[in-house]
Amino acid sequence: MNIRTDLALERHEMLPREEINGVNISFEENENCRATTIEISSEEGERALGKPKGKYVTLETDSFTDSEVLCDGRLELLIKSLTGLLPREGTVLVAALGNSDITPDAIGPKCADCILATRHIPKETEKELKLPRLRDVAVISPGVTGKTGIETGEIISGITEKIKPSCVIVIDALAARSVTRLGTTIQLCDTGIEPGSGVGNKRKAINRETLGVPVIAIGIPTVVDAATLSFDLTGKSPRDSSFSDMMVTPKDTDIITSAGARLIALGINCALQKNLSREEIISLTSA
Amino acid sequence: MNIRTDLALERHEMLPREEINGVNISFEENENCRATTIEISSEEGERALGKPKGKYVTLETDSFTDSEVLCDGRLELLIKSLTGLLPREGTVLVAALGNSDITPDAIGPKCADCILATRHIPKETEKELKLPRLRDVAVISPGVTGKTGIETGEIISGITEKIKPSCVIVIDALAARSVTRLGTTIQLCDTGIEPGSGVGNKRKAINRETLGVPVIAIGIPTVVDAATLSFDLTGKSPRDSSFSDMMVTPKDTDIITSAGARLIALGINCALQKNLSREEIISLTSA
Amino acid sequence: MNIRTDLALERHEMLPREEINGVNISFEENENCRATTIEISSEEGERALGKPKGKYVTLETDSFTDSEVLCDGRLELLIKSLTGLLPREGTVLVAALGNSDITPDAIGPKCADCILATRHIPKETEKELKLPRLRDVAVISPGVTGKTGIETGEIISGITEKIKPSCVIVIDALAARSVTRLGTTIQLCDTGIEPGSGVGNKRKAINRETLGVPVIAIGIPTVVDAATLSFDLTGKSPRDSSFSDMMVTPKDTDIITSAGARLIALGINCALQKNLSREEIISLTSA
Amino acid sequence: MNIRTDLALERHEMLPREEINGVNISFEENENCRATTIEISSEEGERALGKPKGKYVTLETDSFTDSEVLCDGRLELLIKSLTGLLPREGTVLVAALGNSDITPDAIGPKCADCILATRHIPKETEKELKLPRLRDVAVISPGVTGKTGIETGEIISGITEKIKPSCVIVIDALAARSVTRLGTTIQLCDTGIEPGSGVGNKRKAINRETLGVPVIAIGIPTVVDAATLSFDLTGKSPRDSSFSDMMVTPKDTDIITSAGARLIALGINCALQKNLSREEIISLTSA
Repeated sequence: MNIRTDLALERHEMLPREEINGVNISFEENENCRATTIEISSEEGERALGKPKGKYVTLETDSFTDSEVLCDGRLELLIKSLTGLLPREGTVLVAALGNSDITPDAIGPKCADCILATRHIPKETEKELKLPRLRDVAVISPGVTGKTGIETGEIISGITEKIKPSCVIVIDALAARSVTRLGTTIQLCDTGIEPGSGVGNKRKAINRETLGVPVIAIGIPTVVDAATLSFDLTGKSPRDSSFSDMMVTPKDTDIITSAGARLIALGINCALQKNLSREEIISLTSA
Repeated sequence: MNIRTDLALERHEMLPREEINGVNISFEENENCRATTIEISSEEGERALGKPKGKYVTLETDSFTDSEVLCDGRLELLIKSLTGLLPREGTVLVAALGNSDITPDAIGPKCADCILATRHIPKETEKELKLPRLRDVAVISPGVTGKTGIETGEIISGITEKIKPSCVIVIDALAARSVTRLGTTIQLCDTGIEPGSGVGNKRKAINRETLGVPVIAIGIPTVVDAATLSFDLTGKSPRDSSFSDMMVTPKDTDIITSAGARLIALGINCALQKNLSREEIISLTSA
Repeated sequence: MNIRTDLALERHEMLPREEINGVNISFEENENCRATTIEISSEEGERALGKPKGKYVTLETDSFTDSEVLCDGRLELLIKSLTGLLPREGTVLVAALGNSDITPDAIGPKCADCILATRHIPKETEKELKLPRLRDVAVISPGVTGKTGIETGEIISGITEKIKPSCVIVIDALAARSVTRLGTTIQLCDTGIEPGSGVGNKRKAINRETLGVPVIAIGIPTVVDAATLSFDLTGKSPRDSSFSDMMVTPKDTDIITSAGARLIALGINCALQKNLSREEIISLTSA
Repeated sequence: MNIRTDLALERHEMLPREEINGVNISFEENENCRATTIEISSEEGERALGKPKGKYVTLETDSFTDSEVLCDGRLELLIKSLTGLLPREGTVLVAALGNSDITPDAIGPKCADCILATRHIPKETEKELKLPRLRDVAVISPGVTGKTGIETGEIISGITEKIKPSCVIVIDALAARSVTRLGTTIQLCDTGIEPGSGVGNKRKAINRETLGVPVIAIGIPTVVDAATLSFDLTGKSPRDSSFSDMMVTPKDTDIITSAGARLIALGINCALQKNLSREEIISLTSA
């Protein structure tokens, strides 16, 4: 396979024919956003799309950098899609993957700065302060293996065993096939993180099997592999091996990454804290 | 107790008489540094010093900001003291506590940036690259509870259970009684972190009992509690309750904190990687 | 003088008698904020308050950290006070002083991240994009002399001569006498920066005389000098000379500083961009 | 021109024939580094290379990330090349261009953190502290126009007029044609910054003509324009217009950028402070 993409939607577009047994596709749309849900329920579907059985929702949105507040149809469809994947109750552990030193890989850490952590707030404090009842949320940025010496999955697994969440949400930067996906796409799925996905490209699986609880992954494509671009341009694999370590990003990748991180954080905070108003969440969602 | 200090040495100085059963004290000195080792072996000693049984080494050094390279007698005595507390073999987990957003509490995170993480490097890679045999080291910055929703101890415990180190080194910023301690003092001990110590002042115990492996704590005092200062100046507790949330720090706390973090990192890297030369470690120890 | 404060209001409180020729004082108040305007118009007033002739507005507000959106009476009185000091037209240069590496001195740089810079946007672009007419604003963070080798005032003066603004707004962290001022106070004045004020404590004058245009200073007290605290507690100067390099700050100084910086940035953006709605400015005011 | 490169060496490689009147080329080499000096002295040479008359030195080095200390032949040839371009005496202003929020554009700001600023140190202090005589150096990071509202050249020009340096050194990230240049190349020249060069791609000229003093530019290529890569792969301009806003960078661009910034800072500090030993400079050159 000479084309690399972490997006189920792009893999689906690459299929020779549209209809496959055990692959179901449906759409929803509003003025700023179109959601495509691909559901894989057969092994034939797994093979065809190169992804495990489960639900993949891709949001195609107006550009994150159109300098709007992002609190429009995009946010609404993100909240709805995420709510559909989340268990109704129980502590949620948000694990923000990526390297804060590499702009297009910093989606996770930037997002973590904006997620409301609430698990440590005693119930008595909530009552005293007359806060609305908050859902327990924990947030970690495990860092990258090159700096910690530990697999990201091991860190998340160790904490999962300690705090026993009802579900884990993993946030990560993704690779797309097409540069037009950058800054305009969000993917949610209920199958966690696949081996080899992400910008850093060295992840092991982080999913229900490895953690023992449901794992929802939310990702934003921020790079295209240079080798994929080269293949798409020339129709053959690049002879220059240095391409394999190169990525293609927009020149304003910092603005796209920050806007995308804020949009995801808003979506997670809204989906988890149903007792807070939209206005309260917007004002609380800042690093 | 109106005086707050995390330093065993300062607690010892406050004792009405010098000799206590089960409290042993010894000294070592070079041109830049004096090491005082206080060993508590009795319950009487525990009560007198308000600290659990164990070994406490306080290094009193030339000012961290005397713009030298720090690679002098200070580093040598730090390496020697740390080596004396460390198990000879096995993986070491370094846990860097503190809040990178508050300068005097950022010792841990700044230090973590400079510790060599090696546990993920496959033995075959070491052989291929003809690297000297490296000791397995893992490094985490668990962040602060207000942002994660998780007790720091829970995070470290979860990871400890996963990677099963032979020992944990915890790095933290401390509170001293005297402002003259700031920028000139390092404390090492084999009893871990006590409840209520550190700059953030809300830690639960992190020690052999809670983690199941030996826990070495390395700390640098970077603040004096304003209430302690006030008591020392006036001989009574401050009436103004707002003092309890105030800390006293040097105006150049950023320089002191950075220099202190680098010194600790150098000491840890040298004590753990005995197969690398001093020069190799100095050149590798940069954020 | 054993008491250090950059607040005209605290200097006024220290006067032996309230009435002084050429010192006029007036008040305005709403539910979240009280504004005290001290106007010094005589040399007697200058001597009594130790401040040059001009207008000093002190806002005493609800705590910045009461976790509200800050967009209440505080913001309204800040906008009104600032509008009263600003020239109606012309480019405004915002100069954000301070050291981003020292939390309580980082008000300026944090604020600069949130000020809308508009001077570079071509008028044709505004028309094409159908933007409302924006006032020309330039923003600089000149850094600290220890890192640049240049006096802050020299940098601002050099840029002022190039871009010829109708006025300069200087943002700085201040020292107060009382710890109760921290996180609850904003000072505005039309006399610029005095020598020796600020957290770093080494500023030279930055004012109409040195820059050739009106200079408005906006400051937030974030520290109390340890020597001042000591004097207030004991009634005499501290014998311990190390006090002179120490400052007292709240333990949550990072949260106070961030909230204060955002409040000032909101105020400046609202006061300067009268053609944008409050909602537009709030959504655009993020780092 | 479908190929974009800021490197004189790459432009020279693109020439149909090697010999051009008024273009002189010479070489020097050691075990880690090869220096190619291209001197353009005729208008024919200017047209052929698309660069103004002057001296361009390109250092082709071992990879910055070969995890050595960098203090080898690379540093020596960098110091020698820079010394050859610098005036012997007088204050030097170092201006570090670029956006610290975009990893491959952050060479300048990262470098500025490591340059020794000395201009503010009074001569008496040097004598008292028995420091060797230091050359006056000032350092600024002017930021990017989108955040300041001011052209970078205006800021540098304003400060130049204030402090009247004998020369300005401008540091910037560059675009190369070939990905093999990334992390292995440094360019020095005495013609300053050309319009449209750099990663941000919007610079106006910063040179002797605009500043009134000699301007030395030091740059490291950290990106390849996606449109250039596409042209090189396919032989024609990309039809997809989104390519024009895309850049190609290595996946470990953070490590390359940090190592490159440190190497340049070491070179500048050594070339400017001839009275400090290599060891003193290495120990002082840290952020």
